[in-house]
Formats: sequence, C-alpha cells, structure tokens
Amino acid sequence: MLAALAGGVGAARFLCGLVDVVEPETITAIVNTGDDDEFHGLWVSPDLDSVTYALAGANNLDTGWGLAGETFHAMDALDRYGVPTWFRLGDRDLATHLYRTERRRHGASLSDVTTELAAAWDLGVRVVPMSDDRVATRITVRRPDGSSDELALQEWFVRERAESPVLGVRFAGAEDARPAPGVLEALASAETILICPSNPVISIGPVLAVPGVRAALAARRDRVVAVTPIIGGRPVKGPADRLMGPLGMEVSCVGVAEAYRDVCGTLVIDTADAPDAPRVEALGVRAVVTDTVMLDARIAAALARQTLAAVA
Amino acid sequence: MLAALAGGVGAARFLCGLVDVVEPETITAIVNTGDDDEFHGLWVSPDLDSVTYALAGANNLDTGWGLAGETFHAMDALDRYGVPTWFRLGDRDLATHLYRTERRRHGASLSDVTTELAAAWDLGVRVVPMSDDRVATRITVRRPDGSSDELALQEWFVRERAESPVLGVRFAGAEDARPAPGVLEALASAETILICPSNPVISIGPVLAVPGVRAALAARRDRVVAVTPIIGGRPVKGPADRLMGPLGMEVSCVGVAEAYRDVCGTLVIDTADAPDAPRVEALGVRAVVTDTVMLDARIAAALARQTLAAVA
Repeated sequence: MLAALAGGVGAARFLCGLVDVVEPETITAIVNTGDDDEFHGLWVSPDLDSVTYALAGANNLDTGWGLAGETFHAMDALDRYGVPTWFRLGDRDLATHLYRTERRRHGASLSDVTTELAAAWDLGVRVVPMSDDRVATRITVRRPDGSSDELALQEWFVRERAESPVLGVRFAGAEDARPAPGVLEALASAETILICPSNPVISIGPVLAVPGVRAALAARRDRVVAVTPIIGGRPVKGPADRLMGPLGMEVSCVGVAEAYRDVCGTLVIDTADAPDAPRVEALGVRAVVTDTVMLDARIAAALARQTLAAVA
Repeated sequence: MLAALAGGVGAARFLCGLVDVVEPETITAIVNTGDDDEFHGLWVSPDLDSVTYALAGANNLDTGWGLAGETFHAMDALDRYGVPTWFRLGDRDLATHLYRTERRRHGASLSDVTTELAAAWDLGVRVVPMSDDRVATRITVRRPDGSSDELALQEWFVRERAESPVLGVRFAGAEDARPAPGVLEALASAETILICPSNPVISIGPVLAVPGVRAALAARRDRVVAVTPIIGGRPVKGPADRLMGPLGMEVSCVGVAEAYRDVCGTLVIDTADAPDAPRVEALGVRAVVTDTVMLDARIAAALARQTLAAVA
C-alpha cells in the first residue's frame, strides 16, 4: 500500500505516472484542501478536483486546471450580474461543485463526497481530503503603500496572479482540524509514503499542518520519499518561488530538503540539480537524481518507478 | 400606469407585445412564483425568468423556456453523479440561479433580486414577484393503482410531462403569504389591470391566492381585462386543459370567464371563439373578440393594443 501527499497539478501528473506502475487500488492520495473556498455559494476544492479529473483522464492539459473541452458560459453570464468571476468555474466543472455543495448541505462530509466523486469517475485510487474540517490557507501580502493585507489563497494566486509580494502564510483552522478518516491509518500502514512534486508551502504545507500528520510521517521518515517541485531554482509550475523566497527558504531542491527533512528521508531531485545532491545529503536527506520533468506519461511513469525504487 | 398579472411563456409573449404599444416604464408585471423550486441547491423562479428573459429579447423561442442559444453542459455533467436532471437548467441560465440563490442567502428578498436581475437585463418594465414568501403549487395526481400522490408543480409538469391525471391543486403557504412590496400599490393605482394569457389555474391562480390580491382586483373589476389562454377549447401552450377539466372548469374561454368573473370585467377572446361571446357575457363578463394567437410580434402588439382599448 502507498500513501501520497498531494497538492494540485504537479501531484496529479505524478499520480497519473504512479498508476501506470502500481495498481491504483493500492494508492491513497491525501490531498490538500487549504485552497478550498466558496464561490457563488458553491464549495470548490481545487486540488481534490485536479487530482480526480487527472486520474480520470478528464483534466485540461492546456490550462493545468479544470476539465478538458470545458466551456465557461455560466461564468460569462454571471458577468452580467456584476459578480466577480475571476475564479473561472467551467460549466461541466460546476456540476462537481453543485453536487459537492448540495451533499455537504445535507450533511455529507467532504470525505464522503470525495469518495462519491471518485467512484463516479471510476478511479481506482482512493482520494481523501487531508481533513473534513476547514483549513484555510491565508497569504499576507505587502501593498505598494507599505501596508499589508491578508488574502484567501485564491485571491492571491488567481485574482492577483500571485504578483503581490508575500509577507507570510498561515493555515487558519489547522490547529483544530482533525485528519480525515483514513488519513492516519494510510500513513501508518503504507509501505511507502510519497510526497508528490507539489508546492511545499501551500500544497504540502497545509497537509503537514493538520495535527497528527507531521508526526505520522516523522515516525516513518525512512519510508517517506518526496519528489522536488523545484528544478534549477524554479518551480516547474506555480508560484512556489514567490512563497519560498519571502519565507526564507532557498528556492532549490536544497530548500525543499530543508522543508521536509524532519519528515522525509529521501528526496528525488532532477538531473539538472545533481550538483546540489551533496547539499541535500548534508541535511540528512538522501538524494536520488533522475529526470523529474514530466513532459509525458512515459516520463511520469519512469519517475514514479524511480521514486518507489528509491526507498525499496 | 398598468399592472399585469403574469405567468410564464404566454404572459411573456403578451408583455413583449405590450411594450411595443406603451412605455415599458409604465408597466408593473406581477409574476407567479408558485412554480418556484429548488434544484441542486439553487433557487429557481421559472416564471420570473421567462418574463425577464423574454422582455430582454434573450429568451429561447423554440423551447419557450430558458435562454436562446443555451447549452446544457452542467446538467449533462451532473448525470455522471447520479443526480436527477429532468429539470434542465442551461449553463447561462445557471448564472441567474446562482446569483439569486446567493443573494437570498445573504438576506436579499426575492423582490430585491428580481429588481436587480431586471436592471441587469436593462428592462424598462418593473417586474415583481407576487410574494416574497414561499407559495408552492402542489398537484395531487391519481396513480394507476388508484392511490394518489401530491407532487411539486415541476414534478408533475416537467418530470411527469403533465401526464398524471390531476385530482386537485393547492397553493401551499398562500394563506400566510404577503403580497410583495409594490404589488397592492400597483393594483390600486394602475389605470388598467391586465391578466395575461396564462394558465388560470397554476399561473394566475397562485397570484390571486395571495391574500389581498383578489380583493384588490375585485375592487377595480371594471378596470381589469383578461386575455384568454384557451382558444377553440385548447390552451395555446401548456397543460391548462389537464387542470381545468379535472377541476370542473370548462376548457374554453367560458371557463376562463367563470374563473375570473369576480375579479375581471372584460375578457378578450379569440375570433375562433366568437360564438362563445354570449355565454361569456351571460356570466357578467364583457367579451371582446380579436386575434389572440400571438404568432409574431406584430400580432402580439395588436393584441396588447386591443386589450388596452377594451377598457379604455
């Protein structure tokens, strides 16, 4: 059995490689929900959906989010009503949010709904939210006039295009959140625990902030292997550099190793970063060097295979 | 000033004719909300939307409901989740329901939202719901095994295609409903009160069932003129015959006159029904004969002109 801590796009791509090399049914993906938010009264769980859609083969490869072949007629129509629509929900995607919102309103947990959605998309992988409790990633930014503002993650990332300089990050509600059913069990029983190539601050950070998760990984540190999302000093995708730098983390695989060193014994880094391997290992984290840029499904599968082999 | 009691499609078409012959700003449309219901957690007001979309010139002329050029990607996607989607909400139309639901959740009344939607669609006509309180039209039907069932209006009309035989109709909540702000004022001050060619049972019936409305019309009976929705013994559109018959009403303009005789001094009937004029007048309702089949905008405008002239 495998457990995988996952954010959005990078994790989704890695998990698609993983299901090519192991039985999907052996995988439990524990997914960040710090990005979750409400739009137009609908509960949106971006990372859960990215993982689900990608594993279903229904994701939009061009945008990296949402469904392939998506239309945005509802959003365009909302513009008429003067409603902010900077967070673009596709028409087919809306069905997921309508379903999730309605089920939760009738008492279903996010876990329940996530399981139902995974079944509807015929996923073999077990997808679970990190918590059924609300954890909200909040970004404090500096304004041009020197003042600061705290934004919801999506406000900073999507509405402000991750351009506002970051002063801090917190996971509101994390201290009182409980891991979703199955999370700690999966971490305790997994042969290998994978940390997908996701943003260490806002994708994996919230998962680790749920009480019990960090300790569960630390207790099995030699069975935990992470894949770096930073290659050659830059994130493959997303704003990791705009978060790691301001938070005093080195924007490199060394910075990733430092962030994970207490919970993770092995880090897979890119061949481009081979020279950094000694610095990673100096932190007490074993470095495994391979191609980590998942340009296609074949490379993603090879990366998944190498990652598993790294702690075999 | 004019006040018009309105249902859905027939009323919408008539009102479009009316705005061709009088200033839209002089018209208050008082619209049935007995058809309202919740689908996928969204509050849907079919008649308000039919009137609004039609007056905006954005309605779907082929189906008679919804928006022109509509897509149904969200509904199709909901099918995957096993959610009943017999009530088809188009993708653009969803924006209206998302907006309405969210505004009401934040404390806006249905009247407030209706005004906002009308403004967004640049309507000159003032559109008001009959009530901000919930009135739910319920249809009791006979089942093949002889038992009976009470259905929400849309369950009977859409899901069961108005095929289940009707035993009775009630307007749940009507006795405690208050007319929406402006309704009684519009009825008291209007030079003419029009009853649009809508279903007398389930479109106009709920409006008249709101306490105070029937009396407001009765008090000004000689200024009230209705347009028959029944021509040659059949409704122009919709299931009026399947309701009027079982409820003991004659399915004809005479039946319409009987239904309205206490609140309406004049009934516009179709030339095809000219022979029935004496029977209408025998009920104490003046009959005005003209073409009432609104095949195009020109005929709708002529009908509106004749209707106004009938009580001029």
